[in-house]
Amino acid sequence: MPRFEHIRHKPPWRLEQPRALLIVSCSLRSNVNLSRLVRLAGCSGLAEVVHCGSGKVDRDIARDAADTVTVTSPRSLPPVVRKLRNRGYRCVGLEQTTGSDLLYDYRYHRRTALIIGSEREGLSQEILDLLDDVVEIPVYGPPASYNVVTATTMAVYEYCRQFPRG
Amino acid sequence: MPRFEHIRHKPPWRLEQPRALLIVSCSLRSNVNLSRLVRLAGCSGLAEVVHCGSGKVDRDIARDAADTVTVTSPRSLPPVVRKLRNRGYRCVGLEQTTGSDLLYDYRYHRRTALIIGSEREGLSQEILDLLDDVVEIPVYGPPASYNVVTATTMAVYEYCRQFPRG
Repeated sequence: MPRFEHIRHKPPWRLEQPRALLIVSCSLRSNVNLSRLVRLAGCSGLAEVVHCGSGKVDRDIARDAADTVTVTSPRSLPPVVRKLRNRGYRCVGLEQTTGSDLLYDYRYHRRTALIIGSEREGLSQEILDLLDDVVEIPVYGPPASYNVVTATTMAVYEYCRQFPRG
Repeated sequence: MPRFEHIRHKPPWRLEQPRALLIVSCSLRSNVNLSRLVRLAGCSGLAEVVHCGSGKVDRDIARDAADTVTVTSPRSLPPVVRKLRNRGYRCVGLEQTTGSDLLYDYRYHRRTALIIGSEREGLSQEILDLLDDVVEIPVYGPPASYNVVTATTMAVYEYCRQFPRG
């Protein structure tokens, strides 16, 4: 019998409590990035993505997550961040800034809103001023910046590693 | 003074020794996935991606990593895996299989070849039979499988977390 055999259509892991992680994104220019974000959210057990913009989810990319993940589209992000803080979310930006924590060392609060910037501009100072923490991912070579969804993937993976059952 | 201020064009982290991680990919159908893989490799400090297929790297996606990451394209993967094992690489598949280790718990060897499957078929039994280990990433919801580059991003992040300086 082979040591490793492919298991197709393995059922997802069961969370012991709903994920308390929320992805909150500035306006993404690319619907591909938005759709990849939705698929990431679905696979990671997240119920909602807040996208401050008018993008359209491509079902070929997001797959079934297009049905299971709610995408809300507020007009402006600062009021959303303030409201989330009032609701007890730790608001954590993903950016290279002064005062940032390394993602390698960062201990997430369970109730976290991960705030991500747009492809080119990242997070504005207005948003940065509203955050509890900023986490940063080391970059080791050219082009010296991860794609926004790649960086978000790492940050969401790290969260799930710390809270494997929700 | 603001607590968090965006740092643009921050220089990459310096590795104390070259990355001993190699990405080895079965033939990807999508040049977008291949190009995203090359950008991920560049940003993570990897020198080489082995892609067993005839894809073309899109410079708009891979950016400068198109110049700094060598993409080699062997015709067949099994001889590559055998050669890497002889050269002392731990050959680690990324797949849902029997006998797999959870990526959350897995301790990488420094000298690792991460073997990834194609978008639809994943890793074949012929390849699985050649591997030292298989790592698996928990999936929590629909569509119940990560995009191949998303999964690779998580596996590469976990490696860099364990070997932050190379």
